[in-house]
Amino acid sequence: MEIAMSVPSTPAPYTPTDRTVPTRSADRAAYDRETVHSILDASYLCHLGFVRDGAPVVLPTLYGRVGEHLYVHGSTGSRPLRMAGQQDLGLPVCLTVTHVDGLVLAKSAFHHSMNYRSVVVHGIAHQVTDPDEKRMALDALVDHVVPGRAADSRPANTKELAATAVLRLDLAEVSAKARTGGPNDDPEDQDLPYWSGVVPVAPAHGAPIPADDLAPDIELPDYLRTL
Amino acid sequence: MEIAMSVPSTPAPYTPTDRTVPTRSADRAAYDRETVHSILDASYLCHLGFVRDGAPVVLPTLYGRVGEHLYVHGSTGSRPLRMAGQQDLGLPVCLTVTHVDGLVLAKSAFHHSMNYRSVVVHGIAHQVTDPDEKRMALDALVDHVVPGRAADSRPANTKELAATAVLRLDLAEVSAKARTGGPNDDPEDQDLPYWSGVVPVAPAHGAPIPADDLAPDIELPDYLRTL
Repeated sequence: MEIAMSVPSTPAPYTPTDRTVPTRSADRAAYDRETVHSILDASYLCHLGFVRDGAPVVLPTLYGRVGEHLYVHGSTGSRPLRMAGQQDLGLPVCLTVTHVDGLVLAKSAFHHSMNYRSVVVHGIAHQVTDPDEKRMALDALVDHVVPGRAADSRPANTKELAATAVLRLDLAEVSAKARTGGPNDDPEDQDLPYWSGVVPVAPAHGAPIPADDLAPDIELPDYLRTL
Repeated sequence: MEIAMSVPSTPAPYTPTDRTVPTRSADRAAYDRETVHSILDASYLCHLGFVRDGAPVVLPTLYGRVGEHLYVHGSTGSRPLRMAGQQDLGLPVCLTVTHVDGLVLAKSAFHHSMNYRSVVVHGIAHQVTDPDEKRMALDALVDHVVPGRAADSRPANTKELAATAVLRLDLAEVSAKARTGGPNDDPEDQDLPYWSGVVPVAPAHGAPIPADDLAPDIELPDYLRTL
């Protein structure tokens, strides 16, 4: 029995809730942490939704992940960060990350689709007040965009830290959703004379452009060569 | 005076409102229709926010633009489309489109940023009930992803049209926001030994992958060769 108990256990998946079970294509939904983390770690841009005066607001922003926490940051003057700070209970948010992987072209307009991977996180965002957690979160944000970069730039000073607000959102009410593969045309459309298939899509990085004031003796770091 | 009056007038920009004037970096905001349309037309994926039981929900979805209207579609069973249909007054939404154009790496962690173009549309989405407008909107959605594709696929039949709900959102309360250029480091950081500059980012299309059941005599159409 001891041997069996020493085998690392798979962490429990996120518990599905009414909000994280889709009404459509529920078979495309996943709740395991590995899938969710891999989708979150492959991007750095999220769309953060919150409610202001009863109406929805959706803003693009960068994020970082540390274990089961997501962090977003902004000026202490920005609207959602101010709102989260004013409300002791935190700010209800929905944070969504989407990768487009392909355009799915079917013979019928109806079956056109998109290959994608997305994660939707529901929860309450709280302002981070602990200075050590704030520093750690800002490093995580920079490293989430370019791994290795936080250690290769000047850390925030006291004034910059004071001007920056950080929100933490715990990964608890979370789902992933993905579509892969080719078009699913109806059998009766098989002989229509239209091309069908998938056009792959992926973000590409161009050659890094040095800043105007960059000293010529500073070479491109390895973590950017391999990006 | 007649000559002056015959000069085509620039269409009036969108009127800024409390919701479309950002609290931060207001100098990055734009309200002219040309800028807004060009950002919307360069993508096909939006993040649609709405409020459900008082909490925000943000879902990725495709969209199309026809003049000053945006269209999104989905199953008649999907949550936001059902909500918009149930409410005679329509569904308050926020529709956001974001392009990432570059990673801005400054010498200080604080001045790290992102080059981007985004559009945020606030408004009330209404279900499209007119069959002609619905057909036109679905064509626009397909052509927005791949220009020329709607005419090169089988149009939706009556059953498919009945299963598809379309929402219209008018472009009225709209703003664009963009950041371009290199990092804005503080002068006192100029001599720090860190690489600084911009890593360009853009979506790239891979070689189209034919569907498993595609007849070998159907060639790749020109509109996909030039995508």
